[in-house]
Amino acid sequence: MSTTSHRPEATIEADAEVPLIRITRDFDATPAQLMRAHTDPELFARWVGPDGMETKILDWDATTGGRWRYVATRDGEEYGFHGCFHEVGEDRIVQTFTFDAQPDGVALETIWFVELGDGRTRLHAKSLVDSFEGRDQWLASGMDTGVDQGYAKLDALVGDL
Amino acid sequence: MSTTSHRPEATIEADAEVPLIRITRDFDATPAQLMRAHTDPELFARWVGPDGMETKILDWDATTGGRWRYVATRDGEEYGFHGCFHEVGEDRIVQTFTFDAQPDGVALETIWFVELGDGRTRLHAKSLVDSFEGRDQWLASGMDTGVDQGYAKLDALVGDL
Repeated sequence: MSTTSHRPEATIEADAEVPLIRITRDFDATPAQLMRAHTDPELFARWVGPDGMETKILDWDATTGGRWRYVATRDGEEYGFHGCFHEVGEDRIVQTFTFDAQPDGVALETIWFVELGDGRTRLHAKSLVDSFEGRDQWLASGMDTGVDQGYAKLDALVGDL
Repeated sequence: MSTTSHRPEATIEADAEVPLIRITRDFDATPAQLMRAHTDPELFARWVGPDGMETKILDWDATTGGRWRYVATRDGEEYGFHGCFHEVGEDRIVQTFTFDAQPDGVALETIWFVELGDGRTRLHAKSLVDSFEGRDQWLASGMDTGVDQGYAKLDALVGDL
């Protein structure tokens, strides 16, 4: 395993032209392992979200046209999320995303995996919403902590798949 | 029926800030009638698309988290489309949309109905993509003909529901 070229933290960038967030994060894993960790509900529940959050999957059909719904719990507070899977391809997922407490807000998310060689893969994610205000509120909400802590859990988990 | 206040043609506008298209069109119908014409597959197939296009529904589950797929045929040419229903509410539909010939292009569409009184309703639709180039290509593609001809068929059909 190379230690010099590893980028442990996710890069989170606001697009300059459109209300889009771009995330990249490198993993010591194959695209197939990362796809499995994103599409298998038991695996997904083990890594998604910040530390201390318990995720319970309520509905899950990770196929093109399928649906998903889960509830995350921390300190007795429940946070629900739901969406549909527009596409579940070999190394690409396109899905919608809504936080139940903000039911009018819908993001269109695309996640894809690009092999870097030496058993490493770069995860790319982009999330599109319909206003810069909504996008920037989300960026300011502390979502980077959830992303970094979630991907650290994914990093620890994906090597064993 | 009022003839003075009726707006027979759809208004199609490109948003100035984000890569979004906004459509409005008034109908002599209730929100419930328009919802039915958008969610019942047999009704939907009768009005969607430009004149001369035959629509065959291949998959249809117009519920929150459901999926849809149809093929439109004209002059022996087939055009496939598919997506998922993020939300099917009482007077609002949020869905994804892909033209199969451009599989990487995904639009996030929201359609909602606002009562105007006197049995009339304004349909609002917005369609979000992730680049201005993609949005403007779509606007230049002649989509306004399909929208206007489709809504004229819907106009003729919806009064009988």
